[in-house]
Amino acid sequence: MTSVKYDESTPPKKPTNSKIVYQNPWITVREDQTTTPTGETGIYGYVEVKNSVMVVAVNDLDKIYLVRSFRYPSKSWGWELPGGGSDNQDLLEAAKRELEEETGLTASKWVHLSTDYVCNGLLTERMGVYIAQDLQDNGVKEDSPHEVFAGADFFSPAEIDKLIAAGEINDCQTIAGLYHAKAWLARK
Amino acid sequence: MTSVKYDESTPPKKPTNSKIVYQNPWITVREDQTTTPTGETGIYGYVEVKNSVMVVAVNDLDKIYLVRSFRYPSKSWGWELPGGGSDNQDLLEAAKRELEEETGLTASKWVHLSTDYVCNGLLTERMGVYIAQDLQDNGVKEDSPHEVFAGADFFSPAEIDKLIAAGEINDCQTIAGLYHAKAWLARK
Repeated sequence: MTSVKYDESTPPKKPTNSKIVYQNPWITVREDQTTTPTGETGIYGYVEVKNSVMVVAVNDLDKIYLVRSFRYPSKSWGWELPGGGSDNQDLLEAAKRELEEETGLTASKWVHLSTDYVCNGLLTERMGVYIAQDLQDNGVKEDSPHEVFAGADFFSPAEIDKLIAAGEINDCQTIAGLYHAKAWLARK
Repeated sequence: MTSVKYDESTPPKKPTNSKIVYQNPWITVREDQTTTPTGETGIYGYVEVKNSVMVVAVNDLDKIYLVRSFRYPSKSWGWELPGGGSDNQDLLEAAKRELEEETGLTASKWVHLSTDYVCNGLLTERMGVYIAQDLQDNGVKEDSPHEVFAGADFFSPAEIDKLIAAGEINDCQTIAGLYHAKAWLARK
């Protein structure tokens, strides 16, 4: 049943021109004119976004810290791993900053798990996933209007599986991060 | 360590105005003017995208079908679950169409696993994940210039874990779909 239609050395679509059609401090939208190896032309619209991070903060009971976040495009709330944009800095540094800003937690032990594409058909963004261990609570959370949570707590892997099955965790980025976290917990 | 900063009945950011800043047949980019409950104003740029589907086609050995896809924004190839846009149709119908168009497979048994946000900070898109069982190969693949693969095959869950650990599967949507698929296989 294996099928091979394209050799990987040949991109099936290449840009012939690229223009910025919208830009704000967080995203740049481009429309490229494209051509295929057989000469078909078209357009491709996509969004350039800085790389981002998600942090799996694990306590001594192997429970994982989740925050209940509001998401503007869908006007909905859901449980998520803490994380955010990288400001183009080193992803580990971004992970440390995001964890402390969002949760007041710091960690003395960090492990890089993965760097994945968030939505590879539409965004350039890659998301680094990090384990944070040996947690301390500094008791101070940065009060940013961009980071608002309706709750935050530690959940066991079994509780997380239930939240995912119930659709209470319904964010592909968080679920992908938790896939890596479960594999890490199984290896530990 | 639990913190509650916002009540869920109060959206931390509401639109006061919304305009389309870019549109093509696949995406609509909006820039909203926003206000917070405390009166801070700002903008939020995001992308309206049709809902999509991913299909976990499982054979009699519990192996899962993956396709090696090219992704234009990153100009990279990776192993992914078959799937795509819904054309605003019913998501199960879209799942059946995408599976057959992309792989030549049809299935007589379908199970809905989940509907998740693909990138809830930037896109409106939700992704339905479906299990497809009792597979038949119709031997005919639609030859669409938008759907080009450098390979396709069935992989065991253990092989999939290795591909994820090696970064050969590096697409959050596929990894989220596989999280649901693993939970379904464990329940089966």
